[in-house]
Amino acid sequence: MNEPESSGARRVGRRRPVAAPTGGPVVERSRAYRRMVNPFEPPRIYSDDQVAAIHQAALQLLETQGMKVLSAPARARYAQGGATVDEASQVVRIDRELVARALATTPSEFTFHAVNPELHVPVGGRNVCLAPTSGPPNIMDIHGGRRAGTLEDFRNLIKLCQSFDVIHSLGGAVEPQDVPVHLRHYEMMRSMLLLSDKIPFIYSRGSQQIADSFEMIRLAHNIGADEFKQRPYVWTVINTNSPLQLDIPMAEGIIDFAAAGQVLIITPFTLAGAMAPVTITGALTLAHAEALAGITLAQMVRPGTPVIYGSFTSNVDMKSGSPAFGTPEYAKASFGAGQLARYIKLPWRSSNATASNAPDAQAAYEAQMSLWGALMGGANFMLHAAGWLEGGLSTSYEKFILDIEMLQMFAELFQPVGAEASDMALEAVAEVGYGGHFFACAHTMERYRTAFYTPLISDWRNYGTWANDGAKTATDRANTVYQETLARYVAPERDPAIVEAMNAFIARRTAEGGAPPLT
Amino acid sequence: MNEPESSGARRVGRRRPVAAPTGGPVVERSRAYRRMVNPFEPPRIYSDDQVAAIHQAALQLLETQGMKVLSAPARARYAQGGATVDEASQVVRIDRELVARALATTPSEFTFHAVNPELHVPVGGRNVCLAPTSGPPNIMDIHGGRRAGTLEDFRNLIKLCQSFDVIHSLGGAVEPQDVPVHLRHYEMMRSMLLLSDKIPFIYSRGSQQIADSFEMIRLAHNIGADEFKQRPYVWTVINTNSPLQLDIPMAEGIIDFAAAGQVLIITPFTLAGAMAPVTITGALTLAHAEALAGITLAQMVRPGTPVIYGSFTSNVDMKSGSPAFGTPEYAKASFGAGQLARYIKLPWRSSNATASNAPDAQAAYEAQMSLWGALMGGANFMLHAAGWLEGGLSTSYEKFILDIEMLQMFAELFQPVGAEASDMALEAVAEVGYGGHFFACAHTMERYRTAFYTPLISDWRNYGTWANDGAKTATDRANTVYQETLARYVAPERDPAIVEAMNAFIARRTAEGGAPPLT
Repeated sequence: MNEPESSGARRVGRRRPVAAPTGGPVVERSRAYRRMVNPFEPPRIYSDDQVAAIHQAALQLLETQGMKVLSAPARARYAQGGATVDEASQVVRIDRELVARALATTPSEFTFHAVNPELHVPVGGRNVCLAPTSGPPNIMDIHGGRRAGTLEDFRNLIKLCQSFDVIHSLGGAVEPQDVPVHLRHYEMMRSMLLLSDKIPFIYSRGSQQIADSFEMIRLAHNIGADEFKQRPYVWTVINTNSPLQLDIPMAEGIIDFAAAGQVLIITPFTLAGAMAPVTITGALTLAHAEALAGITLAQMVRPGTPVIYGSFTSNVDMKSGSPAFGTPEYAKASFGAGQLARYIKLPWRSSNATASNAPDAQAAYEAQMSLWGALMGGANFMLHAAGWLEGGLSTSYEKFILDIEMLQMFAELFQPVGAEASDMALEAVAEVGYGGHFFACAHTMERYRTAFYTPLISDWRNYGTWANDGAKTATDRANTVYQETLARYVAPERDPAIVEAMNAFIARRTAEGGAPPLT
Repeated sequence: MNEPESSGARRVGRRRPVAAPTGGPVVERSRAYRRMVNPFEPPRIYSDDQVAAIHQAALQLLETQGMKVLSAPARARYAQGGATVDEASQVVRIDRELVARALATTPSEFTFHAVNPELHVPVGGRNVCLAPTSGPPNIMDIHGGRRAGTLEDFRNLIKLCQSFDVIHSLGGAVEPQDVPVHLRHYEMMRSMLLLSDKIPFIYSRGSQQIADSFEMIRLAHNIGADEFKQRPYVWTVINTNSPLQLDIPMAEGIIDFAAAGQVLIITPFTLAGAMAPVTITGALTLAHAEALAGITLAQMVRPGTPVIYGSFTSNVDMKSGSPAFGTPEYAKASFGAGQLARYIKLPWRSSNATASNAPDAQAAYEAQMSLWGALMGGANFMLHAAGWLEGGLSTSYEKFILDIEMLQMFAELFQPVGAEASDMALEAVAEVGYGGHFFACAHTMERYRTAFYTPLISDWRNYGTWANDGAKTATDRANTVYQETLARYVAPERDPAIVEAMNAFIARRTAEGGAPPLT
């Protein structure tokens, strides 16, 4: 024991494991992470009293200052629901009783319904639903560099989402900029519904695009409008225009999704120091007020509308104004937002974000800060769980795979640890004896095939083997994995009649001029 | 809001922050992380009953199977203390009453005393003490590659430790292989005591090396042997030779450190599937038994000896036998080990480990899994906190800096969040108005200089600026930071008489033949 703490690693290196040779090939542990349930109690940055005080401050903000709501129909809905509307200033002030009434009708848990029932996803409680990055205009890979996203990239990313069980819902992935904006939602929805059988999503870019997308989902499920309203099939993200403003497409999105009984993820995007106060508590208080305003509108339109309380609070670099993600402040804000969501008994959505411009060590450690903040913080839904880079301006293929590895590690972390007598293994210790090894003992032979997580890209070979094999970094290996995954991708089966109906619908709507986005 | 979730980042990019231009240059937030106090409740993988059952199973193991103790003096100490010793088999069986008596005299908290009183470090409770990697034979940097460690590298790493407040104790850093083994401990201790005023450490490589090192520390503090015994000044790591074996240098280390009242970090190094059962609970049960055996010997030698309960439980790749670190199993084992340490009311030591061969994304995400497992798990002492790579066979300069960044982020994460009315910032929200920004408001102006963590290597500039500046990865930037830090390093002041006495001591001991390590 001349080098304590390194001798152990060397000892293993010198010994050959006997389990594999005598027990046959080691099979991979299941990666069927279709259900993710978080067993841990979330960390807290606030006392119960402080959480209640922040909620009260947000209510006060909505009563005194209110929200500026740019959509006239939304202001009318607020007015019908009992809020005080000043048409001249477009400001809506919401009494705390109205908020309380809205919260009382918002479900704490619900289940997304997929075309494939095995892919239904429960939301709320301790359940976790993971969705890929949404919104980046650019795509990157280490060989092709950074370029405008295309439909091919979008379809590739949907295929990758379909290929990994740890992704439970689809998302915007990357913006297919080669498709005209008035037709883009058709191509995105067709790709999602035909290349995958997981939960789709819709951008709130105006009522017509939403109506078109709803219709395509109904075609995929082969159901009518009434049945569609009965269950959650799809979600959208509503970003308020912080501070305290709700713009027209977002207000229409709330109204349209609520009317259809579909899922709203209401997410104020509050960067402390920029569009939100420079304090984390100030940014969270503002975000909470804005989320409550959106939740209230949704429940005014249709009580019982499923809403996920979204948080996206980070900070900026005060020297440059650049947004930062995966910072210590970001993780703290996640813990606090989770506390606020649980206080109002709503499912909570967070994100896996980084400001790194490359899928490198910074991308990995900022992603980990985001992931631990969200997943230990009790997130029920994580958007941007895989692929986000460059503060959300690019999707990276390699980052997507790096994220899948990290997400799978969390799925494993969430698996319970056995603590029965057989798990304590006193008999195995007796069998092996002093200074022996466990490679071939009965206890190991019974369990080794599925004992541990098998990584996707982590390389645990010794230095010499790794160096002789090209000294590839994790990012290099992620590039290989994404390409191999696409090559192995298999599309889910679809009824040809449904495919035909969907294509016919798109052809008709295209001929009619499509639906330009609302801005 | 056509691109929800990316528009926010863009908005910030278009706006110029006004705080910096009108408020003068932004000053850096203090990085004086000399005290780290963890505010979070640790996650649990076991119920209270399960923790108690594991403790009982470990006690049963010590009573029935016992430890094979290779050192005759250590067996004699165990026998004097009441344990049952079989000299023929060298097996020591320890009754649970003896363990209970030992735990009753082991302090739950103590304070390391440094030459500079500002650098004293409290251990236990919610305090966190961070020490660099120890033991790697090799050193790496991205330009020089992987090579045998030298005294220059060791000294460089001590200078880096001295330069970052988030490192609270020194460590083995890298093995200075260019110094003969019988003189190596003199050069390592001289470097630690003259290049830094933080807490030193000693390898347990035999009684004579330990005695020499104690003497050098007494010279540095200018104190005698009696005063030295009164307070903890230095620590060593005791690795048991799992399963259930204690070899001669480690046993001597326990006896010598206990006799001198110095700090023992007793750390079974249990790789599930190799030197420990393939189940995490089995590996922890074995490790717990071995740690208790060491703790009991320490208290038999001198009741009240400060001991840190060390855990280093990970798993191997069952296909190759390669050790793995920073895995989901590793994080779970950390949470469990923390629970066991708190059950016996001892400070707990964990590690920041990775199996990656390069300071890349894998190194970062495996380190983060280790760090979160340890630091959220309630670790009081973290060895290998900075620099560890390649499963402990190399120290990497760039990884050291990447780790410092991550450790500083944890130090920031541990800072409390204000939740007073001024933190909620309702007045600032009123001042800014609907859809405005907070860059120049009074609330921001008062706080922006110290509001957020200023990163060491994270690059938050926009893509174009970053690309035009060479598209450097975080690892590239870490290389620059380590070199710049060494260039800026300033040695602590030392009384010339103390330096002279230390040099004279080393000259005399060298002339006497030094002290070869015990193997």
